[in-house]
Amino acid sequence: MLNNRLRREELKSKIMSADDAAMLIKDGMIVATSGFTPSGYPKAVPLALAKRAQEGDKVEITIITGASVGDELDGALSRTGIMVRRYPYQTNKYSRNSINDGSIMYQDMHLSHVPQFIDYGFFGKIDIALVEALAITEDGGIIPTTSVGVMPQAINNADKVIVEINTSQPMELEGVHDIYVTEKPPHRKPIPITHPGDRIGTHYIPCNPEKIAAIVITDITDKVRPLAPIDENSRKISGYIIDFLEHEVKMGRLPKNLLPLQSGVGSVANAVLGGLVDSKFENMTCYTEVIQDSMFDLIDAGKVTVASGTSFTPSEDGLKRLLSNMKHYAKHCILRPMEISNHPEVARRLGVIAMNTAIEVDIYGHVNSTNIMGSRMMNGIGGSGDFTRNAYLSIFTTVSTAKNGDISSIVPMVSHVDHTEHDIEVIVTEQGIADLRGTSPRERARKIIKNCAHPDYKDMLMDYLERAEKGKYKHEPHLLTEALSWHVRFLETGTMKIK
Amino acid sequence: MLNNRLRREELKSKIMSADDAAMLIKDGMIVATSGFTPSGYPKAVPLALAKRAQEGDKVEITIITGASVGDELDGALSRTGIMVRRYPYQTNKYSRNSINDGSIMYQDMHLSHVPQFIDYGFFGKIDIALVEALAITEDGGIIPTTSVGVMPQAINNADKVIVEINTSQPMELEGVHDIYVTEKPPHRKPIPITHPGDRIGTHYIPCNPEKIAAIVITDITDKVRPLAPIDENSRKISGYIIDFLEHEVKMGRLPKNLLPLQSGVGSVANAVLGGLVDSKFENMTCYTEVIQDSMFDLIDAGKVTVASGTSFTPSEDGLKRLLSNMKHYAKHCILRPMEISNHPEVARRLGVIAMNTAIEVDIYGHVNSTNIMGSRMMNGIGGSGDFTRNAYLSIFTTVSTAKNGDISSIVPMVSHVDHTEHDIEVIVTEQGIADLRGTSPRERARKIIKNCAHPDYKDMLMDYLERAEKGKYKHEPHLLTEALSWHVRFLETGTMKIK
Ligand SMILES: CC(C)(COP(=O)(O)OP(=O)(O)OC[C@H]1O[C@@H](n2cnc3c(N)ncnc32)[C@H](O)[C@@H]1OP(=O)(O)O)[C@@H](O)C(=O)NCCC(=O)NCCS
Ligand SMILES: CC(C)(COP(=O)(O)OP(=O)(O)OC[C@H]1O[C@@H](n2cnc3c(N)ncnc32)[C@H](O)[C@@H]1OP(=O)(O)O)[C@@H](O)C(=O)NCCC(=O)NCCS
Repeated sequence: MLNNRLRREELKSKIMSADDAAMLIKDGMIVATSGFTPSGYPKAVPLALAKRAQEGDKVEITIITGASVGDELDGALSRTGIMVRRYPYQTNKYSRNSINDGSIMYQDMHLSHVPQFIDYGFFGKIDIALVEALAITEDGGIIPTTSVGVMPQAINNADKVIVEINTSQPMELEGVHDIYVTEKPPHRKPIPITHPGDRIGTHYIPCNPEKIAAIVITDITDKVRPLAPIDENSRKISGYIIDFLEHEVKMGRLPKNLLPLQSGVGSVANAVLGGLVDSKFENMTCYTEVIQDSMFDLIDAGKVTVASGTSFTPSEDGLKRLLSNMKHYAKHCILRPMEISNHPEVARRLGVIAMNTAIEVDIYGHVNSTNIMGSRMMNGIGGSGDFTRNAYLSIFTTVSTAKNGDISSIVPMVSHVDHTEHDIEVIVTEQGIADLRGTSPRERARKIIKNCAHPDYKDMLMDYLERAEKGKYKHEPHLLTEALSWHVRFLETGTMKIK
Repeated sequence: MLNNRLRREELKSKIMSADDAAMLIKDGMIVATSGFTPSGYPKAVPLALAKRAQEGDKVEITIITGASVGDELDGALSRTGIMVRRYPYQTNKYSRNSINDGSIMYQDMHLSHVPQFIDYGFFGKIDIALVEALAITEDGGIIPTTSVGVMPQAINNADKVIVEINTSQPMELEGVHDIYVTEKPPHRKPIPITHPGDRIGTHYIPCNPEKIAAIVITDITDKVRPLAPIDENSRKISGYIIDFLEHEVKMGRLPKNLLPLQSGVGSVANAVLGGLVDSKFENMTCYTEVIQDSMFDLIDAGKVTVASGTSFTPSEDGLKRLLSNMKHYAKHCILRPMEISNHPEVARRLGVIAMNTAIEVDIYGHVNSTNIMGSRMMNGIGGSGDFTRNAYLSIFTTVSTAKNGDISSIVPMVSHVDHTEHDIEVIVTEQGIADLRGTSPRERARKIIKNCAHPDYKDMLMDYLERAEKGKYKHEPHLLTEALSWHVRFLETGTMKIK
């Protein structure tokens, strides 16, 4: 069996224990890893590294991933204090806590910036690429598993490569990847993708075998995240979006099979996509980052012909379903490096319909997707900005309230801005949908308040707007003494409502 | 002479007075025009239209331009109340006042979004394209003058076209333009530009002659805007940028002749570019929107081989210099549709070094370029977001104080966000430069305060940061009760200083 996983004979001498491999990682190093939304990340070596620290060894390192990774990496290295600097996205409870208590320096970045930051040397020299692989080819080519992320750039730029061959990942994944990397400017060429299904690269990441410093064999499975069941709110949001898209088709502003869909991470995003199973759209395509459970439904229903992403991001049930039908899904799915899945060039060319989730939205259409109450990091911006800014249509969804109604997700001014009023065409909550195309800020505010805000907060929002409009400058009227007062009230009293 | 300007005989029957042409514009219409940063905009017909309104005719219309236009259009139609809706950028005193007093509905948009919004039908049907031309070819092709902007999309999508042939524009402009338009998704192809000097289109905008409803002959000149003389602050900012770029070359992170430069509008931007005349860089190229005076200096000094933009944006002196040496400058300049000059695909591929101006910047690196004190529209975001987000390196400049020192341009939280912390690599003021690559928010804050803030405000900023860091959530620490208090203090007391 190992011959199939490790096809280059001479590399067998590099096989070692995770403990030995972890010794290659030294204090102060910059380590770039595979992994994207708990899929395809290295597991055995980070666990061994954590053990080393627990045994008293001082190791403080920087971790650069594709996106979020599982507890064996983000969790274990946060709990042990090994990971002191982190780029560009995370969703782990422990790393989030360490970021928020100030012990991890975190830069939350646009995912499409990460591969080029590595290539350009903006992070400094990458000491080690730590990657999970399905297999290594005769030429030393590394075949990724359930995600690609920044693996190609990590491998190309690192001094040394540590490979975890994960035997829990089914060999049927071979062929699903399409690896293409760009040159650095001024030598960059157009990326030759004109359809989400275009294959333009190789099935593996080319790698000089001499750079491979260690090979670890493991069978630890991806620790995927649960998806909340599809609830009434998500169903409503999904319904509004489908009605809107149908209207756009009727008006001749969208083709009958729509344009390639991009859908963000999380439960609402999954539900929105899921709603399309019962829509009348056919022959849809997806050009997105993450391939979540509902994509499998769409493929099974024959609704989606091809889904391009950089990772499979299933729930636990979804993972079982994926792994046991890999051959079937592999025919309809392509996993690309995140440089390509999230590339502004391709997103703009294909004209994706971007659907992402907001934490909060303000009356003028600015979106906060990262920092709760302005300061508390949730996950990060991820790829939402890459797609939103370059989409044919950019849609943001959110439930109109949080914390049992004590927080309005529609506020006078968001406490942190990740996407500006210039970037967004449509806002949807379970209350309704606001089409913001062609609107001035004050028109936008009325649409958002009327269609999207929760009834408990509508009057308060209108009151803010109308009082702000009495000021001297009426382009985007604000009362700066009150703009953030809803957040302050929540922090002080536990509710945004006025008691 | 007219034969050279109007080369299709049958079209001579369409020649009429500006007054008659203005009658084609009816109440409620959507009019898309040529013009980009007071260059190449229609003049005679808007003036005639304004006269009509002054004589009591009710005409309320929507105006969509490339970017800012001169007083004959924005000024005249604002003063008469004809322009009730405006997209996407303006710099005229009267239109700005009407936007801020609430009488013009203004949507300030990313310039790269405008051409596709027109093509996609998101603004509704374009009734009239009103464009300035150098000449009309035998086939009815329309040759632009000193800018291109959204002319191609306006002409392609309008029911009728009104052309102002402007005889004040020198025939030497013929050949400087390169007109290429994209298909709508799903049929878009890669834009075949791999060097700023690549020519990929025609010298004129193809137009079905039957759509040409009126031709007006005029000789009103472009009303360009004055440029402030290059002062000590701009010289310092320029100096820091040049040192930084030299360091990047030394570190191997930039080629010796740099990468294509993009430089924003305004006096500081002009000065920054001007500083490069005395630098040691050679064979530079520019891929930008506006070609300002200092570009002529760089071309004359043999420092810049080619400058690609969508408009010439000279000062009055610069305009004279340009027009009297058009043949010379035409060899080094290309004017493209703004769809192409501002296209994320091309900006990312070429790896532009983007240099834009901020109104204010906060300690975490968010930039406000549009709304003074959160509500008062200055100009608009223009193309700054198109370039910033897709640049190899994105640099923002600002003088550290405004209003004689009563405003700090570095604040705890900006009162409006146009560019987020995710978008920017470098901040420069006359105080110094902050390289933000790879920094967490708190590291960023220290760099910005230490290197960029004015000494009068440094301690106040550090005090804010340190008190905010005492809070529970330390990722991007804010005191929401104080975050906007500097702006409030300025509005209430006339200074951000504590008296
Ligand atoms: C925004 C985002 C966090 C929402 O994720 P989700 O799983 O759909 O959201 P949830 O409803 O579970 O909310 C997440 C948390 O935010 C809280 N929250 C939601 N809205 C809130 C608001 N307006 N104010 C304060 N907290 C709020 C929820 O209560 C929940 O907190 P908890 O974990 O303490 O219970 C997630 O989509 C994200 O990280 N987006 C940014 C990255 C991205 O868009 N990537 C897409 C490209 S693939
Ligand atoms: C930001 C921008 C307005 C600066 O332009 P500029 O000519 O260099 O700037 P100035 O120093 O003259 O400032 C313009 C005004 O803003 C005011 N201002 C500047 N900084 C300020 C601050 N921090 N707070 C309040 N007002 C401020 C100035 O006092 C001046 O006001 P005034 O006209 O009442 O005197 C201009 O670059 C812009 O519109 N940018 C957005 C569009 C863009 O970047 N396009 C580039 C792509 S080509």
